[in-house]
Amino acid sequence: MDKNLQNLVFAIDIGGTYTKIGLVNKNGLVIESYRFSTDAKLPYNIFLEKLSKEIHKLIKPNTHSIEAVGIGAPNASYITGKMISPPNFVWGANVAIRQDIEQLLKLPTYITNDANAAALGELYFGSGKSMVNFVVLTLGTGLGSGIINDGKLIYGQYGMAGELGHVNVFPDGRQCNCGLKGCLETYASVTGIKRTVFELLSNNNSESLLRSYSYDQLDGKIISDAAHQGDIIALKAFEVTAKILGRKIADTVAHLEPEAFILSGGLSHAGDLFIKPLKNYMEDNLFKAYKNKIKIILSNTTSSNSILGPAALALQELHKD
Amino acid sequence: MDKNLQNLVFAIDIGGTYTKIGLVNKNGLVIESYRFSTDAKLPYNIFLEKLSKEIHKLIKPNTHSIEAVGIGAPNASYITGKMISPPNFVWGANVAIRQDIEQLLKLPTYITNDANAAALGELYFGSGKSMVNFVVLTLGTGLGSGIINDGKLIYGQYGMAGELGHVNVFPDGRQCNCGLKGCLETYASVTGIKRTVFELLSNNNSESLLRSYSYDQLDGKIISDAAHQGDIIALKAFEVTAKILGRKIADTVAHLEPEAFILSGGLSHAGDLFIKPLKNYMEDNLFKAYKNKIKIILSNTTSSNSILGPAALALQELHKD
Repeated sequence: MDKNLQNLVFAIDIGGTYTKIGLVNKNGLVIESYRFSTDAKLPYNIFLEKLSKEIHKLIKPNTHSIEAVGIGAPNASYITGKMISPPNFVWGANVAIRQDIEQLLKLPTYITNDANAAALGELYFGSGKSMVNFVVLTLGTGLGSGIINDGKLIYGQYGMAGELGHVNVFPDGRQCNCGLKGCLETYASVTGIKRTVFELLSNNNSESLLRSYSYDQLDGKIISDAAHQGDIIALKAFEVTAKILGRKIADTVAHLEPEAFILSGGLSHAGDLFIKPLKNYMEDNLFKAYKNKIKIILSNTTSSNSILGPAALALQELHKD
Repeated sequence: MDKNLQNLVFAIDIGGTYTKIGLVNKNGLVIESYRFSTDAKLPYNIFLEKLSKEIHKLIKPNTHSIEAVGIGAPNASYITGKMISPPNFVWGANVAIRQDIEQLLKLPTYITNDANAAALGELYFGSGKSMVNFVVLTLGTGLGSGIINDGKLIYGQYGMAGELGHVNVFPDGRQCNCGLKGCLETYASVTGIKRTVFELLSNNNSESLLRSYSYDQLDGKIISDAAHQGDIIALKAFEVTAKILGRKIADTVAHLEPEAFILSGGLSHAGDLFIKPLKNYMEDNLFKAYKNKIKIILSNTTSSNSILGPAALALQELHKD
């Protein structure tokens, strides 16, 4: 092999809105990257054609030697290589995306769901670099999660482990997109706290800056800004959210005893306002063997680095043996 | 090494009532075994003296070549080797049992909690032999658990992972021995179903065979026998227990996506009466990616084989590399 070629992996992060692609070296350095609209509401073959074009713009065969491809995508299985009924996509119930991209690039190709990929990104290049046991929670539109145990991602029997967004908080609780009721992500996510704000506005008479926003207008930043200004409803919404999430992650500790939870996504940006009560509520619910041991930290990787997750997946597979 | 010597491990299962010790070969054949009272309410040094005597009765230096020692004990940590405040024992908050037994036998010695050891027993010699991803639930006086992922026990950061008895069912629910309220084991265990029977007797007017028993008299077998005779309260108690446990193990699936749950202990002996509604309630609460995939089976190892768990631990450690 030409020693002047850089040995790289090709990373693809498929989101509901944007798809990011990039070339990453083994130290997590992003050599090239590019973002384009996923057009998840258009047919799958249109996405594939676009992806093919963008990939070939990015790869320079005489400069880059690419060894493997890593993909992060919603509801993707590491085992089958398929996206299973991804919400907000019209691509069908069984999208064989790993196989199709493998065909396109003629390289060993690996896939896992976006939050699992994020956990691998934290393990190799992020806040989890010094740890071998941790849980990543991405608190955005929904709640995604990835579990690292003994330095490895937990994939489960069919490659779909780590869906903490769908543990149950309240039987017959809030309606979830997944068809169940009372799932954690209907409470502990940006969408969840917005729902909590509307519940609080309906149940309380306190004055609030948030009374002037429609449901469609309200977003995480508005709630967070209001809380920082001392708005009673906004503060209470963070408190309620922290209480629910704190109780449920105590259950996660009873399963896995991680060293830490690593939080990212819109809800985590509120910082101490959210993290402090979250830590207290978790502690209140911990079995005694776990008390005062489990950390809750914020991710130090920025959202612009979302291709580091899929890159880490490809790198881990390359160095498996 | 003398080829006529049998290469064995020495297994110790420390329970609140009895301690079992035995010699086990690499195929899980129990060569010798013996049971004696733990006397958990007497000082720890009395137990150690007794153990030492019993061990030397069992081991024949000219016949047996012992390579390692495996211990299963309540609240024991694989990492620290200590039992941390085991309930029903007066041995103190930090019992350095692995170190003490290592001293006694001068052999590599490994420990984990009893339910974790049971999971290893299932993996090597029991109902989990053909699986690499499963969760063992021991539904006895309490609820113990051990999690096998990718063919290995999940130990967690400090060696205390897998305490599913202490996930929360109801905030402010039943008082648990651990100091928390609403822990799963206060509902889904032999003690739990007994508490449920008393709750049902207090809330309902139905005639029931169970009205003639005091709290101290009532046990799992009486409840199970009454249910098999069609007793309304007993049947309802199994239904309520299955509903609660089914909902909570759906959360476990969202973490780990195991191939199966393997059940043992008194509550599991009710068979289909319990397992069928348990499976239905689990399915009702599963995230769609997991539906119709997860098995619930009964352990095929008998309680007389409880030393197979610690034996499996020692054997796994011997063949780690």
